[in-house]
Amino acid sequence: MTRKRTLRRDEFSEQDRIFMARALELAEGGRPTAHPNPYVGAVIVHGGTVLAEGFHSRFGASHAEAAAIASAREQGISLEGATLYVTLEPCCHSGKTPPCTKAIIESRIGEVIVAVRDPNPAVNGEGIARLEKAGLRVRSGLLEEEAVKLNEAYFHFRRTGLPFVTWKCCRTLDGRTTYRPGTRSRISSPEADARVDRLRASVDAVLVGSRTAAIDRPRLRVRSGAGTDPWRIVFDSRLVTPLDSPLVAENSDRRTLMIAAEGASSERIAEYRDAGVEVDVVPERNGHVDPRAALARIAERGIIEILCESGETLGRALMEEGLLRRVLLLQTPRLTERESGEIEAIEEVGPDLFISVGMSCRGN
Amino acid sequence: MTRKRTLRRDEFSEQDRIFMARALELAEGGRPTAHPNPYVGAVIVHGGTVLAEGFHSRFGASHAEAAAIASAREQGISLEGATLYVTLEPCCHSGKTPPCTKAIIESRIGEVIVAVRDPNPAVNGEGIARLEKAGLRVRSGLLEEEAVKLNEAYFHFRRTGLPFVTWKCCRTLDGRTTYRPGTRSRISSPEADARVDRLRASVDAVLVGSRTAAIDRPRLRVRSGAGTDPWRIVFDSRLVTPLDSPLVAENSDRRTLMIAAEGASSERIAEYRDAGVEVDVVPERNGHVDPRAALARIAERGIIEILCESGETLGRALMEEGLLRRVLLLQTPRLTERESGEIEAIEEVGPDLFISVGMSCRGN
Repeated sequence: MTRKRTLRRDEFSEQDRIFMARALELAEGGRPTAHPNPYVGAVIVHGGTVLAEGFHSRFGASHAEAAAIASAREQGISLEGATLYVTLEPCCHSGKTPPCTKAIIESRIGEVIVAVRDPNPAVNGEGIARLEKAGLRVRSGLLEEEAVKLNEAYFHFRRTGLPFVTWKCCRTLDGRTTYRPGTRSRISSPEADARVDRLRASVDAVLVGSRTAAIDRPRLRVRSGAGTDPWRIVFDSRLVTPLDSPLVAENSDRRTLMIAAEGASSERIAEYRDAGVEVDVVPERNGHVDPRAALARIAERGIIEILCESGETLGRALMEEGLLRRVLLLQTPRLTERESGEIEAIEEVGPDLFISVGMSCRGN
Repeated sequence: MTRKRTLRRDEFSEQDRIFMARALELAEGGRPTAHPNPYVGAVIVHGGTVLAEGFHSRFGASHAEAAAIASAREQGISLEGATLYVTLEPCCHSGKTPPCTKAIIESRIGEVIVAVRDPNPAVNGEGIARLEKAGLRVRSGLLEEEAVKLNEAYFHFRRTGLPFVTWKCCRTLDGRTTYRPGTRSRISSPEADARVDRLRASVDAVLVGSRTAAIDRPRLRVRSGAGTDPWRIVFDSRLVTPLDSPLVAENSDRRTLMIAAEGASSERIAEYRDAGVEVDVVPERNGHVDPRAALARIAERGIIEILCESGETLGRALMEEGLLRRVLLLQTPRLTERESGEIEAIEEVGPDLFISVGMSCRGN
C-alpha cells in the first residue's frame, strides 16, 4: 500500500465525522452482495443538510458515489458546491461501471472528503489527483481506520496479494472437532449453523482439506439461499476426493476448485475437469499442498476472502505459516450427541477468556 | 436431600426479598475462607430497620446467625420480636461452635426466615423444628435457588456423597493443552494464572493425573498466599510420580494424597507414606484409577470441592462418567510462545459461543 498523505485529525470538524460515520454505516448495506468489490458508502451534504446518500449494493451495480449522485439527479436536486463524503477513494477507471471521478466532476460537487485511498493499483491516489486537477477540494484520512476495517479483506488482498483467510473451527467441550475421530458429526447447534451460513454468503470462497471433503462429503453452499454460493476449494495434494462427492458431482455452477500438488496424476486431473471442476497445481510442502503457493494461485482468480471450514490439520498448517488473518472458534458446550452442558459465564481475563460451563446433572 | 416444604412465592414480601438478598451478599464474605463449611449470611431486622448483620467468615469461626446476634449484644441492642433472615437453616448440633438454634431462642428473636434447609443429615429440618417448638415463627424457601447456588458444592456433596468437581482446562488457539505434546509449557497469561490462584484458594483440593504430575512437576499451591493451600491429589494408578517431585518432596503440610489402583506396589505405597504423603487404594477401570470410586474415597476425607487441573485424559474420563459439575475452559488466543492473536469479539449463538480472534500481521 502506498504511504498515505497524513492529515492531522483537527483538519476535520465534528460534523465531518458524523457524515463520514453515516457513509460507513451505509456501506454496510452492501454486505454480503457487493463482494469481491469493496463495501463503499457515500453521503452528499450542503449547508449541513444531507442531499443524497448511496452505497455500492452489489457486484456490477453503481458505485456508492454514482448512486448518490443519480439519486439527487432523479429528485432534481442541484449538487453545485456540495460536499461528498465517501468511504473509499473514487475510482478513475472504467470497469463494470464508468469512472466515478467523471460523475463527481460533472455533478459540480465542490469538495470531496475521502476516508481512505483505494489501494487498487488502478486507482491509488489517481482518483484524488483527477478531482483536484478539475478544481475540487479533496481531503482524505477521515475515519481511515474504520474504513480499512470495513474492507479488511480487500485491503489485505491489495497489500499482500493473498486472500484474507478466516478459519472457522468447531470444538466440543473436551476440545474435539468431531464426536468420534474419523467420522462425520455435526457438533454445532442449528443456530450456529445459520450463523455460518451467513458467513459463507459473505465470502468469495470456502476452503476444506481432502480429509474433510472425503469424510464429511460437504456441499459448502449457502443453505438458506440468502446470498451467492461461494467458490468451493479443496486442498487435495494427491486428488483423492471421490468423483461422486457433492463438491464434484453437484457442481453445476462450475465453481469447485481443487488444488493439487505437483506430480498429481494427469488422468485424475482430466477426470475432474471433465466433471466441470477446476484444478490448479502448486508445489508440495511437508507432504501437503504448499499453502502459501495455493493461496497465491487462488488470488489470481480474484478471490479475496476465504472461509476455511477445515479440520485441524489444514487450519494449523495455515496458522503456522502466518496465513490466517482470523480464527472463528465455535465453542460448543456439547460433549457427545446426547450430553452437553450450558454456558454459565464468560469472563475476559487479560488476553484470555474463561468460559464456565455447568454440566447438567445426571443423578450422581 | 429430603423434600422441602414448598411455599408459594407470595408468602414473602418485597421487603423480605431485599433482606434475604442482603444476607446472600453477606455470605459471599466467607469465600474463600469458610470452606469446607457452607457460606452463610444473616440479617436481623425490626420494624424495617437492620439491627445486626453477620456471616460465617472462616472454618471454625462463629456461624452467621451467632455472629449477628453477638454483634447486636455488643452494642446493647434488644432483639426481642425481631426477624432473622438467614441463608441456610440454623444448626441444632454442637460442632466447632454451639448450636445456633440455642443462641436464636435465647436472643428472643420472634421470627426466622430461612432461604433453604440444610441438607446435612445432622440438621435437615431439625433446626427449624427446634425453633418452632420454642414458639418462633419460621418460614423457608425465600431465594432458595440462589441459596443453593451459593453453596453448590456443599449441596452437591450432601446430595450425592461426591465432591463437586470443576475441570479447568487451558487450550491454545489450535485446540492444544500445551505448545508441544509431552512437554511443560505455560500457555496461559499471568492474569489468568492469578485468577486460577484465587480459584485454588476457594476449593478443598486440586487434582491432577500422574502424567501432569510427572511432566509439569506442579506445586499446586496458592501462589499469591491469599488463602489456604488446598489438598493436592494425584490419580496415579501405578504410583509412578517421582519421589523428588514437589508434590511429594515439598509436602510439609502433609496434604498430598495419591490415589492408586488395586495391585499397586506396597513397597511404593510405603515410600510415599514415609515421605508424609497419604495413599488411598481404589479399584482399577480401563487401566486407570476408577474415577467414581476415587471421588467417593476423597469425599470420606470431608473434601467437598475439587479443582481438577489435569490434562485431557483425566478430564475426559471424569466427564464421560458424568462426574464433572463444571468445566472452566481457559481459551487463550496464543498459538505458540511467540505467536498469538487478540480476542476481537465474543458472540453467543444459541447454546454455542463464537470467539473471533484476529491474528496479528506477520507481514504477509
